Amino acid sequence: MEKLLYGAAYYEEYLPYDRLEQDVEMMKAAGINVVRIAESTWSTCEPKEGVFDFSHVTRVIDAMEQAEIDVIVGTPTYAVPAWMVKKHPKVLALTKTGRNLYGPRQNMDITNTDYLFYAERVIRRLMEQTAHRKNVIGFQLDNETKSYGTAGENVQKAFQEYLKKEFEYDLDQMNHQFGLDYWSNRVNSWEEFPDVRGTINGSLGAEFQKFQRKLVTDFLNWQAEIVKEYKREDQFITHNFDFEWRGYSYGVQPEVNHFEAAKCMTIAGADIYHPSQDLLTGAEIAFGGDLIRSVKRGNYLILETEAQGFPGWTPYPGQLRLQAYSHIASGANSVMYWHWHSLHNAVETYWKGLLSHDFAENEAYREAKIIGREFRELGSHLVNLQKQNRIAILVSNESLTGLEWFPIDADPANPGKTGYNDVVRWLYHRLYRMNAECDFIHPGCEDLEQYDLIFVPALYAAPESLLKRLNEYVAKGGHLLATFKSGFADEYVKVRTQVQPAVLGECLGVEYHQFAFPSNVRLKSEYYQALEGPVHTFMEFLISRGAQVLAAYEHEGWDGYGAVTRNHYGKGTATYLGCMTGEKTLDIILEDALKCAGISRAAERFPVIVRKGRNDFGKEIVFYLNYSPKVQKAVWQGKDTIDSCAGVEAVDLISGVEIKPGEVLEIAPWNLRILENSGTIL
Amino acid sequence: MEKLLYGAAYYEEYLPYDRLEQDVEMMKAAGINVVRIAESTWSTCEPKEGVFDFSHVTRVIDAMEQAEIDVIVGTPTYAVPAWMVKKHPKVLALTKTGRNLYGPRQNMDITNTDYLFYAERVIRRLMEQTAHRKNVIGFQLDNETKSYGTAGENVQKAFQEYLKKEFEYDLDQMNHQFGLDYWSNRVNSWEEFPDVRGTINGSLGAEFQKFQRKLVTDFLNWQAEIVKEYKREDQFITHNFDFEWRGYSYGVQPEVNHFEAAKCMTIAGADIYHPSQDLLTGAEIAFGGDLIRSVKRGNYLILETEAQGFPGWTPYPGQLRLQAYSHIASGANSVMYWHWHSLHNAVETYWKGLLSHDFAENEAYREAKIIGREFRELGSHLVNLQKQNRIAILVSNESLTGLEWFPIDADPANPGKTGYNDVVRWLYHRLYRMNAECDFIHPGCEDLEQYDLIFVPALYAAPESLLKRLNEYVAKGGHLLATFKSGFADEYVKVRTQVQPAVLGECLGVEYHQFAFPSNVRLKSEYYQALEGPVHTFMEFLISRGAQVLAAYEHEGWDGYGAVTRNHYGKGTATYLGCMTGEKTLDIILEDALKCAGISRAAERFPVIVRKGRNDFGKEIVFYLNYSPKVQKAVWQGKDTIDSCAGVEAVDLISGVEIKPGEVLEIAPWNLRILENSGTIL
Amino acid sequence: MEKLLYGAAYYEEYLPYDRLEQDVEMMKAAGINVVRIAESTWSTCEPKEGVFDFSHVTRVIDAMEQAEIDVIVGTPTYAVPAWMVKKHPKVLALTKTGRNLYGPRQNMDITNTDYLFYAERVIRRLMEQTAHRKNVIGFQLDNETKSYGTAGENVQKAFQEYLKKEFEYDLDQMNHQFGLDYWSNRVNSWEEFPDVRGTINGSLGAEFQKFQRKLVTDFLNWQAEIVKEYKREDQFITHNFDFEWRGYSYGVQPEVNHFEAAKCMTIAGADIYHPSQDLLTGAEIAFGGDLIRSVKRGNYLILETEAQGFPGWTPYPGQLRLQAYSHIASGANSVMYWHWHSLHNAVETYWKGLLSHDFAENEAYREAKIIGREFRELGSHLVNLQKQNRIAILVSNESLTGLEWFPIDADPANPGKTGYNDVVRWLYHRLYRMNAECDFIHPGCEDLEQYDLIFVPALYAAPESLLKRLNEYVAKGGHLLATFKSGFADEYVKVRTQVQPAVLGECLGVEYHQFAFPSNVRLKSEYYQALEGPVHTFMEFLISRGAQVLAAYEHEGWDGYGAVTRNHYGKGTATYLGCMTGEKTLDIILEDALKCAGISRAAERFPVIVRKGRNDFGKEIVFYLNYSPKVQKAVWQGKDTIDSCAGVEAVDLISGVEIKPGEVLEIAPWNLRILENSGTIL
Repeated sequence: MEKLLYGAAYYEEYLPYDRLEQDVEMMKAAGINVVRIAESTWSTCEPKEGVFDFSHVTRVIDAMEQAEIDVIVGTPTYAVPAWMVKKHPKVLALTKTGRNLYGPRQNMDITNTDYLFYAERVIRRLMEQTAHRKNVIGFQLDNETKSYGTAGENVQKAFQEYLKKEFEYDLDQMNHQFGLDYWSNRVNSWEEFPDVRGTINGSLGAEFQKFQRKLVTDFLNWQAEIVKEYKREDQFITHNFDFEWRGYSYGVQPEVNHFEAAKCMTIAGADIYHPSQDLLTGAEIAFGGDLIRSVKRGNYLILETEAQGFPGWTPYPGQLRLQAYSHIASGANSVMYWHWHSLHNAVETYWKGLLSHDFAENEAYREAKIIGREFRELGSHLVNLQKQNRIAILVSNESLTGLEWFPIDADPANPGKTGYNDVVRWLYHRLYRMNAECDFIHPGCEDLEQYDLIFVPALYAAPESLLKRLNEYVAKGGHLLATFKSGFADEYVKVRTQVQPAVLGECLGVEYHQFAFPSNVRLKSEYYQALEGPVHTFMEFLISRGAQVLAAYEHEGWDGYGAVTRNHYGKGTATYLGCMTGEKTLDIILEDALKCAGISRAAERFPVIVRKGRNDFGKEIVFYLNYSPKVQKAVWQGKDTIDSCAGVEAVDLISGVEIKPGEVLEIAPWNLRILENSGTIL
Repeated sequence: MEKLLYGAAYYEEYLPYDRLEQDVEMMKAAGINVVRIAESTWSTCEPKEGVFDFSHVTRVIDAMEQAEIDVIVGTPTYAVPAWMVKKHPKVLALTKTGRNLYGPRQNMDITNTDYLFYAERVIRRLMEQTAHRKNVIGFQLDNETKSYGTAGENVQKAFQEYLKKEFEYDLDQMNHQFGLDYWSNRVNSWEEFPDVRGTINGSLGAEFQKFQRKLVTDFLNWQAEIVKEYKREDQFITHNFDFEWRGYSYGVQPEVNHFEAAKCMTIAGADIYHPSQDLLTGAEIAFGGDLIRSVKRGNYLILETEAQGFPGWTPYPGQLRLQAYSHIASGANSVMYWHWHSLHNAVETYWKGLLSHDFAENEAYREAKIIGREFRELGSHLVNLQKQNRIAILVSNESLTGLEWFPIDADPANPGKTGYNDVVRWLYHRLYRMNAECDFIHPGCEDLEQYDLIFVPALYAAPESLLKRLNEYVAKGGHLLATFKSGFADEYVKVRTQVQPAVLGECLGVEYHQFAFPSNVRLKSEYYQALEGPVHTFMEFLISRGAQVLAAYEHEGWDGYGAVTRNHYGKGTATYLGCMTGEKTLDIILEDALKCAGISRAAERFPVIVRKGRNDFGKEIVFYLNYSPKVQKAVWQGKDTIDSCAGVEAVDLISGVEIKPGEVLEIAPWNLRILENSGTIL
Repeated sequence: MEKLLYGAAYYEEYLPYDRLEQDVEMMKAAGINVVRIAESTWSTCEPKEGVFDFSHVTRVIDAMEQAEIDVIVGTPTYAVPAWMVKKHPKVLALTKTGRNLYGPRQNMDITNTDYLFYAERVIRRLMEQTAHRKNVIGFQLDNETKSYGTAGENVQKAFQEYLKKEFEYDLDQMNHQFGLDYWSNRVNSWEEFPDVRGTINGSLGAEFQKFQRKLVTDFLNWQAEIVKEYKREDQFITHNFDFEWRGYSYGVQPEVNHFEAAKCMTIAGADIYHPSQDLLTGAEIAFGGDLIRSVKRGNYLILETEAQGFPGWTPYPGQLRLQAYSHIASGANSVMYWHWHSLHNAVETYWKGLLSHDFAENEAYREAKIIGREFRELGSHLVNLQKQNRIAILVSNESLTGLEWFPIDADPANPGKTGYNDVVRWLYHRLYRMNAECDFIHPGCEDLEQYDLIFVPALYAAPESLLKRLNEYVAKGGHLLATFKSGFADEYVKVRTQVQPAVLGECLGVEYHQFAFPSNVRLKSEYYQALEGPVHTFMEFLISRGAQVLAAYEHEGWDGYGAVTRNHYGKGTATYLGCMTGEKTLDIILEDALKCAGISRAAERFPVIVRKGRNDFGKEIVFYLNYSPKVQKAVWQGKDTIDSCAGVEAVDLISGVEIKPGEVLEIAPWNLRILENSGTIL
């Protein structure tokens, strides 16, 4: 990128009256330099089958061109027009709960051939209209694509073909891997393959979900191939990925393999929504940013994030600006709001844009003007920030799915509510707050050795090769911190028959045969100081096979078992965390693991978040972000270690003031400081 | 009416053995002078298609005639017989969840032509049997009619025809009003009109619900036309309306427009069920009564209310009688129990009647005997009570539906639980407790000027004409108190593009561009004394455009915005309440608004409720109702103002004792006093 | 039985690799002498239609034979193979929610003729393979059979035929009994009989559920007849009954009439699962054991119980052994785990067996070795224990169903959560904790007189004959304690028209006309000492008709009504408990009732549970079970009364030490003592 992009989704189609001119004017005033258009507007672009009308699209591109605002064009395929459904009812996906009804977006079968036929045609026409336009800088494939649970007959047939390949037509092998003998689920011929929607077999079910993720990858790849036929070299292809949704962007996306799906793109993109007001911590912005930056190992686009959003998200003064810089601090090259104006009809009426329904200036818009100005003035120092993190967290779609089938805290009286992302975020959240920046890696990652410390949360379902690879990583000198449930099942969610933690036990030097839900269990430790609070949710009864027991359980029933262990294996160390703990306890364990791996960090702690990167001038940029309603202090160390404050001077980018090593920085409430210096990122 | 009606629904068909004679005897002993029969008994009246047997009906009318008990005949159409469903399965409505099953009442498609054919026939036959009977005083059309979510193909076709008329065949206009471009929902030809059951568009969805309400009006009107062909001049037509149901009668009925549907009737009727025992406050009796009295602006019938009801409703000694007079105090001309005897089978077994399953005398029956005697003795003083309230509350089905689609407190992590009726009852409940009697008016009301003070709770969806009419009302000297969310959307639930509060802002002298869910927000005020408690649920950021800010928000994030404002506009004043508050705060605001509008009231407060009316003798009747287990005191002011106690003498109707102005009345627990006087209702 | 059976379900089919030999070796080492095989393995036994492969079965029987381990063979019919569903989709039951999907067990229509054809064939083939085998000691019919809500057209037709017989083709009689006139539900010809799935009529609905229970009885009987054609005299027929499931075995099974269904068996069997760790009380083991022992009035098999189970069930040291003896103490002749090894796939992966997924020794297995050894050494003293309880609890499927339709605490705002089993367990639990052992009897029980005291909890739906029989029992000298809701409805769940408690009022000497949900109601009593705590959930307003009022309600609204009464009737006494109370209050009432009936018990109270029986040597066995993490003390009375400690000496079976009367026994945490003596069971 040549500049920071600052913009919004813009739906001229949805406007209650023509105000393109005023909108462009207000955008310019706010420093907006990019809009995203066209996604979800199929019924406007193709009002009748085969009749195309791109006048809205063209009109907006024209106006933006005049105003020197760039445009990202989205393919409109994630919401189908009524005429298509009327003619081809099977375009709507058949799911576990029956045939979808018309109305919502993302209700179609993305493998339906009629749908694909029309989708290809409308994409090609749209590309013809837009690809040659100067200010069109890139294309977004579809939007937040999923498989939407599609499981009709065609999908099930395709799944069977997929299984035939997977198991080389060997049903015995499949029955064995999935354990289908159980409850008479054995499949003795391909012809009798049952409707997979009703399966109670977690292995078969998880494989179907993996197949559904593959449908998403295939679909996006198919769109990318079409777009590539038209687009210029300088135009990018992206997609708006999203995350596990808990009313806001929470964790690893269960329905998409971001790493796989992103391969067809030139730059990754995502939307991040998060709690605000008193609940604004920056954690979701950092988590989503770190993850999506890792997907293609580089800068990424924030294609959507909240402006005013819901009444619970209306930002306090300063928050919108703090949020914008938080994205940049994670490596984003854009901050784009969803959306420009608030909608006057339909379900997202209260998902408010930068402008309220009255299109008038408001506090959020006024703050956007400040952001826009600063981005324009400072953008060249902030764009294309490069990070060289020494920590990585290994995340796995397969483990997430596995723990959906077998939630960590489920029992017959309780469906369980602790899933994979609860463990991932439990770890991530504490690392974030102690200013330990990290990348994310995936099970296929080949260069583990670039990291000094790898966290492996609840790697429940993994192939043996991956576990061995982790052993090897430690042997070569890496530091590993794995948690409970890791190594438990193979890639088919079949529990391993080895003593647990299976395979990984080698580097961990520990084993266990039993586990329990802790009740009144505490930790005791001579290693850690002041270990606090009880163990919760899940505990494994660790027995050392060479590892040092750092902490053990304190409980009448199961005294004597280890809870946290560390093993020296080859040139590295492997720490195992056999239970879930409270935050303070986890902080102690994590701080120790970081120290053990020799990771240095800033001395500040949340609510002061410190994030770093190297800019196009080869300088180090350090953000001090204050996520609190109080003034906070930070010290410019001159070098980003906690050990030394000797070092280089820096410049406060916003004020232009020079900052000396050891100088104390004041950070206003919900505000930030950005320092540029020529130090080395450690 | 010539007398107070006191009675019960009576189902001779359901009796486990013949005891008509004993029942009539017990009724007489209890002073019961009316029974309602026949509704829901279709399978008894027409055991086979075209075979009629009205012997149960005739038998009961005969017996009642002999006993000089009047009869209200209900058409039996709200529960269909098995033979009809076997022959015409589509008689059962197709709803969002599929085709209804046989079993429950109110499961049919009220537009199905087969159903209507049979319904007309059975009504005509029933009328032939009963219309000429001397003691048949009126007819009830169907019962608690709704559309029951009917949404089959025929209904959807009819809806499309309705839309064609509404938009004069102009699809662009419809697409614009409903904002159907969003998510590709645009309808580009009538032929492709999609199944509306799946829509996510609140405007289209709300319009369908409005259409469904129209089906109810049409259906009742159609029944009324049939009944009118047979009934005598002196026989009334009524219907048993009910209210939003939350385990008891709670608020405005979402599925019926009472004001429209009642037009075909000669007198309005309703059922009111309410919490009892420690939870008996009279609020539901007053709310339902005030609303149903307003529907046809006159006295009304309570066609059903609880006798013993559920085990949680078993009345304490005195409560049954207190309840009976509470209905009369709101303007009811009847108190009829559901029902005479408790049922021995089926779902309403524990919805107990006046008699328990054993048909023996019990405490409730013994109390009914007292009520019956008093009604007979005092009825001529209590029947046909006329009220001249100076306060009205404007209620709107459209706003209710709008806030179903967009609950006030919904966000992506929370479906929201605060709806229209929560705001209506929030206001009504406090007015009730401060003895400020009121009427209800509807959006089409033409004589607003008869009221000195109009409350407008959350008028979310309203046509511009109504908002202008409210401006005009204030300009002419009226007093208005409107709350947050008013004026926000138009009659199609399309959010207005004007600055909010749209249109109404003119009389209110205030505007806002943003709103939020309050968290730790309090009010501060120099105007109100001792304003207490935090703001909750919803707050708008009010900016004065001429109005006086009566209270403002106290909060770091959004200091400086107004919360409660008052504007002098023309000859009147307009108060705006921009947030939801606790009860004590609301009391202060409401007392002030009443004072500002010059409304005088009794000095008593809940648990002493004072309600008034003028009787056929031109005298004022004042009820002092004690909703508590303790003796309470009240003062007969001699004139119903809080300013003066000079005035007229009164007579205690029950004891016959004379009461002097200024005299203190003792009211026993769960008891009441009724004073008749010749004062002027103020 | 000749010995105590100690074993596990064993699924060689499900093993991830061949380890039969090691498993047998480990079983031997643990003293396991029986395995249960084959149930649920249909797709392995009959991989294709008509192609049979019993090699897994034979192989296991062979190996067990060599190891002198007995085998129980289960018919595999409760999980259908995929080929059957593909060929005959209607094998899957049609229920209230539509056609079941393939995947789960217990999803089929047990009346479907295709299913029955295949089931019969596979059972016959299995019997041919196994019946002649020496170490096959018995057969289990199907598993946890229910009707699974089957309600397809064929089932409804059969139900109509059932009704025709029940009512001798007299529809008027049926309409009357079920009260179908209500809401036009009257059935005027058999041809129009509606789909019963939608009924709102509790009588019709309950009758359908009774019919569904009959389907279970018929199905098991049909299987038994087939098995009997093959089995040897010495081989038993059993079934694995289970209980109302609330995440563990809770109460009377709603969907099966155990007493009826067990008639075709030679010995009753059951599974019992229960909370563990801090929540282990033994109550579920005792409850299930007492009930299943009563079903055929003799010893029974525990065919499944938890070994490690779920993470919340992982036993503390000692608990597995305590549990094993708890079963024996109730009269079980076997303790069999579900299951031997933990499963590596599908849905019960965390329902862990004795072995974890790693098949290694673990703490549970090590404790099993102790149990196995002790069972082998002491088994002859503990097998075939006979009880002669003087107390019985009358349980009724019909009352359970009745109170499903009409939950005790339901009202329109609350669906109700207190059902029949809540009342049964409320009583049972306190009796259990005060060491009052009891049997269960059913409505058809003919020898009530063998008991000194009969408890009748909430006998809501019962024929008049049963109520009269209870009157007669009291008249003859029996002691009865009945609770609220008893006698209320007849066997068709039609509320009786008599004064309540209907019929039973004769022996109880009490009546009531009204009832309520208590709120702030307490008890007052001159009879009981220190009666504590409030009344909750439900209260009847008792009026004495001769009975002594033992306790009355204290409440402003309904003072003067009785709450607990006792009547002398004939030679016996009848106590009535008209409300639900707290545990302490109930204890006082129950202790008094036991005393009144002259029931003597041990002096110990929970957490020390004392249970007794007579063994094959004619000696009395007394178990002292300590359900706590603390050492507890008990006194060997030498005679099991609370009045006297004169008596016989005993031998501690485990230590072999002699115990003198009056001697204090120490019982270690989660441990037990077993005394054998020659005393008389009182």
